[in-house]
Amino acid sequence: SRELFVLTYGALVAQLCKDYEKDEDVNTCLDRMGYGIGVRLIDDFLARSAVRKCRSYSETAGMIAQVAFKMYLGVTPSVSCSSAAGNEFSLILDKNPLVDFVEELPAERASLCYCNLLCGVIRGALEMVHLAAEVTFLQDRLKGDAVTEIGITFLRKAEDRKHKRN
Amino acid sequence: SRELFVLTYGALVAQLCKDYEKDEDVNTCLDRMGYGIGVRLIDDFLARSAVRKCRSYSETAGMIAQVAFKMYLGVTPSVSCSSAAGNEFSLILDKNPLVDFVEELPAERASLCYCNLLCGVIRGALEMVHLAAEVTFLQDRLKGDAVTEIGITFLRKAEDRKHKRN
Repeated sequence: SRELFVLTYGALVAQLCKDYEKDEDVNTCLDRMGYGIGVRLIDDFLARSAVRKCRSYSETAGMIAQVAFKMYLGVTPSVSCSSAAGNEFSLILDKNPLVDFVEELPAERASLCYCNLLCGVIRGALEMVHLAAEVTFLQDRLKGDAVTEIGITFLRKAEDRKHKRN
Repeated sequence: SRELFVLTYGALVAQLCKDYEKDEDVNTCLDRMGYGIGVRLIDDFLARSAVRKCRSYSETAGMIAQVAFKMYLGVTPSVSCSSAAGNEFSLILDKNPLVDFVEELPAERASLCYCNLLCGVIRGALEMVHLAAEVTFLQDRLKGDAVTEIGITFLRKAEDRKHKRN
């Protein structure tokens, strides 16, 4: 049952809003916490999902949406590739269970990325399988957008970049 | 899947340990947060469990252990009544999923009730069905005890007490 989790997450965000005046600081803190969770959660994910190694960014993005989100949040975002280079993806959530008990953001918290923990979790988990990525919210229903959209940009490996430069 | 919840709970406790120097203050804060969660969670619990009204404290304690704990934490504590008056109960957990990723409390946090949120949740939920109770950890495996034990003391209703006095 997710309700206890969702309400506990709400208590965490509320506490951080008490601790930090600036939304940006809350967002950074949630991302950093998420990162720490992601680097630990990946072992659980690999053990329980028994997925094989992904051979493309596209496959990895699909795995996050269809297996990981399903497993931990009970929803399956749709995935779209948003760059010709094939390294930028969007996870689009029609329904975000983490905000089940949130009606709207308070006016003074307009820049809060309420679910920013998720970005950190994805980033941390990817790093543990040697994939560097930037993960951010691109749209958020809590902010009046039509959907909630998480953007994942896979960063070329340092080695690749070095190779290119030479 | 509980892992994301358990790790997120750990992040919450860690944040509170940063915020408050004294363990007692962390414990109080966790209890207060849990209370806020309990008063909201009870609706979800009643709707999904479809349990009927309990007719005794003993039945209520059993419901918390067998239905609520099972539903939200996936474990079923054993219940024992620990007072002749029939208003004190112990929930005994052989396994506490909330501490899955916790090896031991740091030496400087020896008085921390790591799972104190649960006490608040139970207290808040009970209050919403008009049952006043004190809920505290009596034993904790994290502190070296053989089991984890949550004590619930149902408090006589104000009306009962008044009646008695007259």
